[in-house]
Amino acid sequence: MPQLGLLHGRAWASLLGKLLRPPGAVCIGAVHSHSQGTRDLTPQQMVVREKILDLVVSCFKRHGAKGLDTPAFELKEVLTEKYGEDSGLIYDLQDQGGELLSLRYDLTVPFARYLAMNKVKKMKRYHVGKVWRRESPTVVQGRYREFCQCDFDIAGQFDPMIPDAECLKIMCEILSGLQLGDFLIKVNDRRILDGMFAVCGVPESKFHTICSSIDKLGKMSWKDVRHEMVAKKGLAPEVADRIGDYVQCHGGVSLVEQMFQDPRLSQNKQALEGLGDLKLLFEYVTLFGIAEKISFDLSLARGLDYYTGVVYEAVLLPTPAQAEEEPLNVGSVAAGGRYDGLVGMFDPKGHKVPCVGLSIGVERIFSIVEQKMKTFGEKIRTTETQVFVASPQKNFLQERLKLIAELWDAGIKAELLYKNNPKLLTQLHYCENMGIPLVVIVGEQELKEGVIKLRSVASREEVAIKRENLVAEIQKRLSES
Amino acid sequence: MPQLGLLHGRAWASLLGKLLRPPGAVCIGAVHSHSQGTRDLTPQQMVVREKILDLVVSCFKRHGAKGLDTPAFELKEVLTEKYGEDSGLIYDLQDQGGELLSLRYDLTVPFARYLAMNKVKKMKRYHVGKVWRRESPTVVQGRYREFCQCDFDIAGQFDPMIPDAECLKIMCEILSGLQLGDFLIKVNDRRILDGMFAVCGVPESKFHTICSSIDKLGKMSWKDVRHEMVAKKGLAPEVADRIGDYVQCHGGVSLVEQMFQDPRLSQNKQALEGLGDLKLLFEYVTLFGIAEKISFDLSLARGLDYYTGVVYEAVLLPTPAQAEEEPLNVGSVAAGGRYDGLVGMFDPKGHKVPCVGLSIGVERIFSIVEQKMKTFGEKIRTTETQVFVASPQKNFLQERLKLIAELWDAGIKAELLYKNNPKLLTQLHYCENMGIPLVVIVGEQELKEGVIKLRSVASREEVAIKRENLVAEIQKRLSES
Repeated sequence: MPQLGLLHGRAWASLLGKLLRPPGAVCIGAVHSHSQGTRDLTPQQMVVREKILDLVVSCFKRHGAKGLDTPAFELKEVLTEKYGEDSGLIYDLQDQGGELLSLRYDLTVPFARYLAMNKVKKMKRYHVGKVWRRESPTVVQGRYREFCQCDFDIAGQFDPMIPDAECLKIMCEILSGLQLGDFLIKVNDRRILDGMFAVCGVPESKFHTICSSIDKLGKMSWKDVRHEMVAKKGLAPEVADRIGDYVQCHGGVSLVEQMFQDPRLSQNKQALEGLGDLKLLFEYVTLFGIAEKISFDLSLARGLDYYTGVVYEAVLLPTPAQAEEEPLNVGSVAAGGRYDGLVGMFDPKGHKVPCVGLSIGVERIFSIVEQKMKTFGEKIRTTETQVFVASPQKNFLQERLKLIAELWDAGIKAELLYKNNPKLLTQLHYCENMGIPLVVIVGEQELKEGVIKLRSVASREEVAIKRENLVAEIQKRLSES
Repeated sequence: MPQLGLLHGRAWASLLGKLLRPPGAVCIGAVHSHSQGTRDLTPQQMVVREKILDLVVSCFKRHGAKGLDTPAFELKEVLTEKYGEDSGLIYDLQDQGGELLSLRYDLTVPFARYLAMNKVKKMKRYHVGKVWRRESPTVVQGRYREFCQCDFDIAGQFDPMIPDAECLKIMCEILSGLQLGDFLIKVNDRRILDGMFAVCGVPESKFHTICSSIDKLGKMSWKDVRHEMVAKKGLAPEVADRIGDYVQCHGGVSLVEQMFQDPRLSQNKQALEGLGDLKLLFEYVTLFGIAEKISFDLSLARGLDYYTGVVYEAVLLPTPAQAEEEPLNVGSVAAGGRYDGLVGMFDPKGHKVPCVGLSIGVERIFSIVEQKMKTFGEKIRTTETQVFVASPQKNFLQERLKLIAELWDAGIKAELLYKNNPKLLTQLHYCENMGIPLVVIVGEQELKEGVIKLRSVASREEVAIKRENLVAEIQKRLSES
């Protein structure tokens, strides 16, 4: 995708250009984590977040998504039995009278509830918002109990795999745009997994729990996962080994073809449906020019209960050096899949609305970018102030206030010191520390001559400008820079 | 403020221009309120919000504010004893082990907690976020249990009234920019109120509760407030009447001068301090060119416990017709004040950081704008899609997918129907319904000739464009429109 890379490369360069101010701006602060497992986001972090979220949301909008917002808490019953083993992580509100409420755990379930409640049969929406999970806070890995999610979903009955392919395209556009390094999107299908479990001899009652074990393959070795399945979950060793043969397979569309020929898998109706859809998906992602980023991976399971079809997960590929250090710790930065049954769970008559969607792992991305900036010692401007209003003499507060109001009214971002008589040096230091590019200076001499001095902080050059031309001159300089 | 009005007038016209699409776009939907007193925000509402918040946040940034974010919940103890009579409205989280937590009630207390916790002595920050209050939901008035706040605050020890005047300037810029109609900012000072209570003969133990009664003067008549003070709160009738003489006073800087001469008030040290600061405040707002918007109003109290100095509240002035219908229901759309003691409450050694700030009543503003749009039957585009990719023939999905990927990769906002073989009319109707301005059409004929048809939805004009020039031509048209 040369065009995409180029385009977003420019966007990213401009982002970095806006973020970075060599002289004296502030470094990303230390993490302020609280005993309750949450944290404040400092101005430095907020700047990074704002830029990254801008890039993500403009991609969602480029694909025609509408915005939607749902409340932070839902009726407790809305969230129960949607998250499998993770349901214990839901925060409940205290019963202070009225309904029992819980903080939302993700943005997908509230979306499905919204569709069912309003009988919406078709919708392409994005949602950026916080979710809350009572996980034991492992601050080191950047996991907090409050975090931001960025979701894009397509609801509606459509021809197979077209929206699913668009979801993969969106993930590629965002990850390319953010320039986090090389990445790969693993794809599988719940029906292929279920078919695989069936033909390997997993009892149907164990499908869910074995699926959970398989889901750990990113973080655990096959040996450990096998041990969990056999020793803890009572799977016969030969069944585990048969699964082992499959889950080590990954590849492109040729692997799909190969699985069609697989003597056992090809006997399973569900698996064949899943394989048929994957074949189509590969056709579409090829047309989208992203096929080389997609890998059919029989080990990909995804933990959540509600997936019914294709599932996917984007991982950053480690550099050779990283791969040697931590071979298993590949980071998932986006994920999603098809959930055709969730909306029906909220409809009194069980009417289904098929859905497919994705979630960008922005918290992980935030910490990667913050880490990069820390490593390179990059500084960030936390304000956007363009002009500082200063005076070298005492008793010029009135002039400074009149002047700054004029700038604000002209839409110019401006600051002054909240002191009656600040020293000129203090004022100029403030500009250097904050990365403010321009200073307007008014003093006795200027007042007498009807001019204002305009100073460039970087070059220290000063020019006198007629008072009435000041705003125009500043706007000219700002538009040129 | 002609310049300000002009500037923001343009911004608002452009906002409306972006929001409005005469042909077939969707009206603002009905309010979807839940039994728990919250609601989902529809795509139509989200568009209005996004534009209004953009205007508010860019004003905050114009004044040099940094962004900050704090968690949705705080330790319960952080919130206790900060909100006076309203403390019962705080949502607590269920005790699931660990600390006792509560959902934040406003953004001011978390800000003060942040400053104390990080020993920050100086900061100008804005914060846009949700807060939660267990009020009995009176949906008619647009009050919900979850709502958005937009706060701007200046913390630090500065020369008097300079930051306070800037807060008033910000409120003026935002309210002028939003063009909601004429408005007025009422200003008072807690020290003047306390001084007034003292010289009127209110026992000191009753200052807080009488202050709460006075705070209701916007919504209740003086007669009812007097009755509450005398009958319910046990104030002597002659004391109430003395208060009554004061709280009916409002005016400009001349009223400040008059109160300096007031035989009773001028005997009170606190009141004199407050009056001195108000005099200075009037000097500064005059320099800012907003004096005619400011009214010294002795009835303004503001409910929250933490205010220590100047307090203010912006109200929209009713049109003559409205004034006749509901003389008392003037709507507060922004408010704030000085709270010099709050940060010290979170510091182990009680170190104080003086603060002053404001909160924009965006929920009220959202509903005013939504109401206006409904009244005028104005339609809103909920997506930003610029180009639709269509085909008049069957079996053109592959071409459509290749084409749309090219557009996305060039940063063009594009959609297609997720159907293998949609009818051309269905595709064109979709564009008209969604307000998409351009359609690119690829069919057998075009494929043969190496061209693409570019159609303007509004004029229905079609031109053939060489396939390789398509992106450039679309970008040209979009930049012109």
